[in-house]
Amino acid sequence: MSRRVITLTTDFGTGSPYVAEMKGVILSICPEIVIVDISHQVAPQDVRQAALILDQTVWRFPDGTIHICVVDPGVGTDRRIVFVQLGVQCFIAPDNGVLSRLMRRDELRRALVLTQQDLWRHPVSDTFHGRDIMAPAAARVATGQSLERLGPATDRLVMLDWPEPEVRGAEIDGRVLTVDSFGNLITNIGHDLVDRLGNSAAICVRCAEHTIRGVVRTYGDRDPGTLVALIGSSGLLEMAVVQGHAAQRLQVEAGAVVTVSCA
Amino acid sequence: MSRRVITLTTDFGTGSPYVAEMKGVILSICPEIVIVDISHQVAPQDVRQAALILDQTVWRFPDGTIHICVVDPGVGTDRRIVFVQLGVQCFIAPDNGVLSRLMRRDELRRALVLTQQDLWRHPVSDTFHGRDIMAPAAARVATGQSLERLGPATDRLVMLDWPEPEVRGAEIDGRVLTVDSFGNLITNIGHDLVDRLGNSAAICVRCAEHTIRGVVRTYGDRDPGTLVALIGSSGLLEMAVVQGHAAQRLQVEAGAVVTVSCA
Amino acid sequence: MSRRVITLTTDFGTGSPYVAEMKGVILSICPEIVIVDISHQVAPQDVRQAALILDQTVWRFPDGTIHICVVDPGVGTDRRIVFVQLGVQCFIAPDNGVLSRLMRRDELRRALVLTQQDLWRHPVSDTFHGRDIMAPAAARVATGQSLERLGPATDRLVMLDWPEPEVRGAEIDGRVLTVDSFGNLITNIGHDLVDRLGNSAAICVRCAEHTIRGVVRTYGDRDPGTLVALIGSSGLLEMAVVQGHAAQRLQVEAGAVVTVSCA
Repeated sequence: MSRRVITLTTDFGTGSPYVAEMKGVILSICPEIVIVDISHQVAPQDVRQAALILDQTVWRFPDGTIHICVVDPGVGTDRRIVFVQLGVQCFIAPDNGVLSRLMRRDELRRALVLTQQDLWRHPVSDTFHGRDIMAPAAARVATGQSLERLGPATDRLVMLDWPEPEVRGAEIDGRVLTVDSFGNLITNIGHDLVDRLGNSAAICVRCAEHTIRGVVRTYGDRDPGTLVALIGSSGLLEMAVVQGHAAQRLQVEAGAVVTVSCA
Repeated sequence: MSRRVITLTTDFGTGSPYVAEMKGVILSICPEIVIVDISHQVAPQDVRQAALILDQTVWRFPDGTIHICVVDPGVGTDRRIVFVQLGVQCFIAPDNGVLSRLMRRDELRRALVLTQQDLWRHPVSDTFHGRDIMAPAAARVATGQSLERLGPATDRLVMLDWPEPEVRGAEIDGRVLTVDSFGNLITNIGHDLVDRLGNSAAICVRCAEHTIRGVVRTYGDRDPGTLVALIGSSGLLEMAVVQGHAAQRLQVEAGAVVTVSCA
Repeated sequence: MSRRVITLTTDFGTGSPYVAEMKGVILSICPEIVIVDISHQVAPQDVRQAALILDQTVWRFPDGTIHICVVDPGVGTDRRIVFVQLGVQCFIAPDNGVLSRLMRRDELRRALVLTQQDLWRHPVSDTFHGRDIMAPAAARVATGQSLERLGPATDRLVMLDWPEPEVRGAEIDGRVLTVDSFGNLITNIGHDLVDRLGNSAAICVRCAEHTIRGVVRTYGDRDPGTLVALIGSSGLLEMAVVQGHAAQRLQVEAGAVVTVSCA
């Protein structure tokens, strides 16, 4: 078998010793694993942001990758920890909705509740299930541990509400989903909806009293400092300032309303 | 032999090219190694903080892991660089006390002074022994280099003072050791001392004119914004604000006095 | 063959999901690869800074390492993406001058324009060629893809101007090239030029109305807080404040004039 990959997504912050603790536990069980950091800069306890980061990244990874997500405001309470398989990707995370955006994208093949305590690290800290339950469970799955031994199946997972853009004739009402590290405002409006409205030069994007005319192909199509709309690398409409920071320019954050129409 | 692990702990900052230089040197000597970043965000030249981060993390790693620590205000002076083996973990670091907290935890099996210059990278920069001495020495140990060739044994290592909590009858006087990335205040008071005081609901924790009644099991046991005391994932008493930042709320930093008593 | 290494240098920021996307694409094609982050904290679109970071780090890596650099203000425009081999190091980057400082150091053995679209990931996003062109091309080279298939050779690459220090008798006029994470000011004046001026104690370094007398061997040679000049780990003259931040003290940034003379 080819080497397996485990990814880590947490709100621990860059350079956190907590991340290193998880890696040590994983490597102690499964020395051949490849560990990839997706992000440790999820805003503290921001389950929705973690869900969006996972949805942007996990589909690029090899079949059978195990993605651990520790954004877990309910650590140590009776919230469950689950193993979920969506298509060819596997996940271990608290059952708090952090996987719910992913479920719109691929087939749910398996959902198990982690209950089998002999697969965990002991004593289990009530404040760090990432290290003591999720990391060892993922490492054991990577070494070929039978999935059935993890715990019982469940057919009910916590789902968050992910508002869809509304299409009304030649107008789309959407939202800013997230702001990336360049300050670009990523919306929930897919390229297919935009394409259907008409010619890209005739599209009009409005947000926070700003109006952008035309959808460009890439940042370099306009001069530095220009506010542009374009289809970003995840296939979603975004607003950007060429070589600048759109979120600061527009004073806008996640949740803001975006309206797209055709002139 | 299974693949070996080298970890890196430095004060170089995230994204520092100096870290990448060390990794390049290590991989050039030992391409099969797994390199794990523990943290590069130790405060500049803060030997005590590095010592605490090492103590929190190194014990989770596989047997035979080599931990390099480059927090080295004396680089290029006559301070020594040492190879130290504690139990099954190995360390390469300047002899400035950064390993002294670890020594309370496991048996000192070996301490050598790195003097064998043909194992180093040349010319040796007077300002970057991490790259030119520690990285190549660690990589050579990982490839099976005989330890005796590193240099002569020593029975004297620089030790820092690590104040212990004082127990006076039904009261414990301790200190805040460090603040983690969530703003939680980690003390030097172990769970065993707290357990001995009595029932967790009757424990009283005082710090900076704040009083916390009761030790909870985990953050989720109280509402967001509540100041709580609990046993953290390293087995030490900590103060936290649920979904908040205790260090900011209490205006407290490392070194602050913490008193625990039983009502 | 020994395992190959791919390095990543970008302006995506630490913890960016864009970096994780590239790693997922690489590992999907070449699961045996070692991926090393050089830095993701290049200032946005700062091609010159990226060029300096590459020049500081890439020479430490094993023969045959493939260095990807995604600092790419022209993404999606008609700027070219190139594969370049310098000595035993390989590079994939936009042809925007980011490799031009490296070319002063080692022999240009090969320069190809990436045009062979069946080696890319499809559909290619107009805003993320790092993920869709550079990452898959690098991974395919790592798996042994014949280089000729990448695209046609070119003998013309974009070159940036890298000013050299001027020597006028017993005086050298140079520049601050970059500021490192400790705040040290790294100049473009090599140790050989400084050595030729005379005895290190008699050297005089001037910058922004500050004068430093003597070149010390290492930071620890002076008391904390002292402004010193020394030869840094890349062999270049630098100005530093012992256990402090020279860029803040001198209120100086990249580009500032530095004059070295002999008393």
